[in-house]
Amino acid sequence: MKHIADSTVRRLSAYLRFLEDFEHRGLTTISSDELAKQGGTTSAQVRKDLSFFGSFGKRGLGYSVPELSGRLREILGLSQHWRVIIIGAGKIGAALAQYRGFRQRGFSIVAAYDNNPEKIGRTLEGIPVRDIAQIEHDIQREAPEIAVLTVPAEAAQPMLDRLVRAGIHAILNFAPTQLQAPPEVTVKTVNMAMELEGLSFALTNRE
Amino acid sequence: MKHIADSTVRRLSAYLRFLEDFEHRGLTTISSDELAKQGGTTSAQVRKDLSFFGSFGKRGLGYSVPELSGRLREILGLSQHWRVIIIGAGKIGAALAQYRGFRQRGFSIVAAYDNNPEKIGRTLEGIPVRDIAQIEHDIQREAPEIAVLTVPAEAAQPMLDRLVRAGIHAILNFAPTQLQAPPEVTVKTVNMAMELEGLSFALTNRE
Repeated sequence: MKHIADSTVRRLSAYLRFLEDFEHRGLTTISSDELAKQGGTTSAQVRKDLSFFGSFGKRGLGYSVPELSGRLREILGLSQHWRVIIIGAGKIGAALAQYRGFRQRGFSIVAAYDNNPEKIGRTLEGIPVRDIAQIEHDIQREAPEIAVLTVPAEAAQPMLDRLVRAGIHAILNFAPTQLQAPPEVTVKTVNMAMELEGLSFALTNRE
Repeated sequence: MKHIADSTVRRLSAYLRFLEDFEHRGLTTISSDELAKQGGTTSAQVRKDLSFFGSFGKRGLGYSVPELSGRLREILGLSQHWRVIIIGAGKIGAALAQYRGFRQRGFSIVAAYDNNPEKIGRTLEGIPVRDIAQIEHDIQREAPEIAVLTVPAEAAQPMLDRLVRAGIHAILNFAPTQLQAPPEVTVKTVNMAMELEGLSFALTNRE
């Protein structure tokens, strides 16, 4: 498949949310104009985003809401169940462990890991906190697909390397640092300060 | 000024991080090639991103590290101090309140707000938790520029409207919902499930 930009994938996620909202309200068709309006983009962009994945909708009739949402779930890999582990049982780990949005989307958090003996053996919002020393063993046994990294910045790269060696191919990184990974591994970094910088840019450069 | 895409602003933030790392290591010049390599982009993209903001660097000599990082801080509005309030003193609020990256960047969290009497009057990682009822009064008095929204999805839009009426123009939203705001208000939504969807997409569509 052609390389699909991150920004396209984000828009697909957003379209899916609008479609589900539509389904919820009992609506059965939606135009690319409507999808574009909801997503703050253009109908040409919507058609282009969807065209990567084959042909959808009928000219003049719009898209079938259940059909398109089903296809988007498939494209995004959401018709499947994903096992997620959290590395670092701190505040961010706790916030994620209780986040209802994950389970709704088929992501289930199987365990959190820490090296702090006071945390190991406890639970984090109902998720068991295990000793980081056993992670290779657990990955082999339970085959989680996604790891969420919430360790301090200086620990992030060695931990990523360790996870990759153990077989993890998808990492969501909350440590405020840029990480290197082999090409077959996907790393997404959520940098809170960068998000705020987007706002300070907007406040500073506003007309 | 020309409209600058969000993705450009994110790259500027990333460039600044690499430049600061370079400064830290005592290096004084950097080529667009080097910046591109670090940022996982092309040198043409780096030059284009920077060209929005005037002319930088000398052909064949690269960019002066302190000059370019200084300019990027200005462009991103980081030579200024920003006051941030957190709406919702829950787990995400706590994770943000203790996030060291904010203060380093000139963002200081002045208060958190909640409607839960058990939380009001306490502190969240050293930040006072105040009654949401007093927020209009506080905004008028303290003039915070940025609000971080960590309330439940169904409470997010009414709270955004309330903050906008009270004079807030920049909102970082953690509620898993799309929000509407007037054009003069910038809203950035951090959707954790969407980040994971980017990973499930990559796992599903990998060659």
